[in-house]
Amino acid sequence: MSETEISTLGEFGLIDNLTRDFKVKNSSTVRGVGDDCAVLDYEGKKTLVTTDLLLEGIHFDLTYTPLKHLGYKAVAVNLSDVYAMNGTPRQITVSLGISKRFTVEHINELYAGIYAACERYGVDLVGGDTSASVTGLLISITCIGEADEKEIVYRKGARDTDLICVSGDLGAAYMGLQLLERERVASAGQKDFQPDFAGREYLLERQLKPEPRADVIAEMRELGIKPTAMMDVSDGLSSELLHICKDSGVGCRVYEDRIPIDYQTAVMAEELNMNLVTAAMNGGEDYELLFTVPLTDHDKVAQMKTVKLIGRITKPELGAYMVTRDDAEMEIRAQGWNAFGDA
Amino acid sequence: MSETEISTLGEFGLIDNLTRDFKVKNSSTVRGVGDDCAVLDYEGKKTLVTTDLLLEGIHFDLTYTPLKHLGYKAVAVNLSDVYAMNGTPRQITVSLGISKRFTVEHINELYAGIYAACERYGVDLVGGDTSASVTGLLISITCIGEADEKEIVYRKGARDTDLICVSGDLGAAYMGLQLLERERVASAGQKDFQPDFAGREYLLERQLKPEPRADVIAEMRELGIKPTAMMDVSDGLSSELLHICKDSGVGCRVYEDRIPIDYQTAVMAEELNMNLVTAAMNGGEDYELLFTVPLTDHDKVAQMKTVKLIGRITKPELGAYMVTRDDAEMEIRAQGWNAFGDA
Repeated sequence: MSETEISTLGEFGLIDNLTRDFKVKNSSTVRGVGDDCAVLDYEGKKTLVTTDLLLEGIHFDLTYTPLKHLGYKAVAVNLSDVYAMNGTPRQITVSLGISKRFTVEHINELYAGIYAACERYGVDLVGGDTSASVTGLLISITCIGEADEKEIVYRKGARDTDLICVSGDLGAAYMGLQLLERERVASAGQKDFQPDFAGREYLLERQLKPEPRADVIAEMRELGIKPTAMMDVSDGLSSELLHICKDSGVGCRVYEDRIPIDYQTAVMAEELNMNLVTAAMNGGEDYELLFTVPLTDHDKVAQMKTVKLIGRITKPELGAYMVTRDDAEMEIRAQGWNAFGDA
Repeated sequence: MSETEISTLGEFGLIDNLTRDFKVKNSSTVRGVGDDCAVLDYEGKKTLVTTDLLLEGIHFDLTYTPLKHLGYKAVAVNLSDVYAMNGTPRQITVSLGISKRFTVEHINELYAGIYAACERYGVDLVGGDTSASVTGLLISITCIGEADEKEIVYRKGARDTDLICVSGDLGAAYMGLQLLERERVASAGQKDFQPDFAGREYLLERQLKPEPRADVIAEMRELGIKPTAMMDVSDGLSSELLHICKDSGVGCRVYEDRIPIDYQTAVMAEELNMNLVTAAMNGGEDYELLFTVPLTDHDKVAQMKTVKLIGRITKPELGAYMVTRDDAEMEIRAQGWNAFGDA
């Protein structure tokens, strides 16, 4: 890879270079990059807005994260928030802080990932801000989407007797991170170290290139399911369950033996001597959808291959508990990842 | 000031603490902070989106920037972009990266400034993301606003014979920065150093607490003026004039003796032995409005006290030049501030 210093292009040159290939895909994008503001048209629909900040050394480690994957993931996690409101993401803005050790080629790689995610999910890049940074790389993405008012699903709508559902499986992204960390430590100081990821590809994919569950949203729409509450699992299932219970004023019971866990996740947990259920409940970064539906939707949800029923909503006074395999009740606590280092 | 470590609150505690006092002011804010996305309703209007990234050590120096001013300015510069499209800002999201040297009290100060700007300009805080950072403070703000389709002013609408107008005065923010830098250097290593800012308050205010020109937009609306092209002056008048000329496919002539410059700016330039016109043309961070109007609006614009006619739009083949006091023509070049360090 050749190395071009960013200062040879300057800010405007860099932005031109990066955004040239992005073609507008949505009729709601009236004007994208190139003026003081982007102009959007959501006539008759509600506008959804979400934003995420990713910092080197806090949220990602470039010793094992390819820049293209990082760009893809940075977009994916924002889209996931829009799908979690039952909306459709339409536009993103991307702001970057870039330290001197990054070249134009590096940033092109990052943007190749951003581009791939925008193409796959039909999203337009409509603006941003690009600057030098003192240290490291930072990515701040805002995603704008749309939804019919009657389609929007908040966290607050879960009701007693509703079924609790989750898509995909949990804990794999966390195990992928543990695996990458282990190989990083093992490789320290060794030239030509070859990490051993054979048979663990799924864990790496879940950590490095998560996909927002647009497919689950589309399937629910086809089946005529509208969740009563929904959010995406970014901080871990425990944390998200407590959000829904708190905002909806309800309690819940989830069943340990119903938590969906991939085989690779289980093998890795055993190898690392970690508690599998803790990883699945608190690992986070799954970007699966956690949602609740009325009991009457049981049969519809049961036919969704990628969705599993994991429990039920209760009256608030019953609290939030996991029912273990031996029928004990364990209180659910948020032990999700916290960027400020406390539990 | 007492010192509370951010980790004692955690991310969610910190966000609750910071956003508690923000009350929703706009009917377009259906749902603010507290779900996966904010929900906005701009039915029948276009949505405007802009974003800015401010990094410690690149865009601001906390040795002379009070945190409250910084919060205010971070919001102000985003609102300025929405006004520059002839729109009305309605919502912002605020993402922060915060290193360990900052306490809860520090971030409260920063938010006091964000709050003050939101109150003054009637804007709702609707979301964001807050994280630890490895070094320094970073602020990423996205502003969302609205405009009637027929009211939006782009950079591309300037036509031959249009008048070029600018609000307020130019170069003061840049001179304020020079002054602050001079005092910082003078104070280095001296305990109880008292910087001498007497008679220079305007320069400091322009640098530390800029105001977006909502007043100019409101006055133009009252007078029935709709600019043909408009943008805000963030990188310097030269740079912005070239943007309008390029996007509109036109040339321009601006007159050196018409560039609005405050008395304090002139005195400071002389004291620092700097070229005054260069400071006014290329200093940047003025957050004034640069716009063009048809010749037929001459009398309306002439009655605006805070707006000055500085030149006219020409055919593209005539290029972009400044006419000096001695009637020479100097080609306008963008020498605005560039975060990547090149000219």
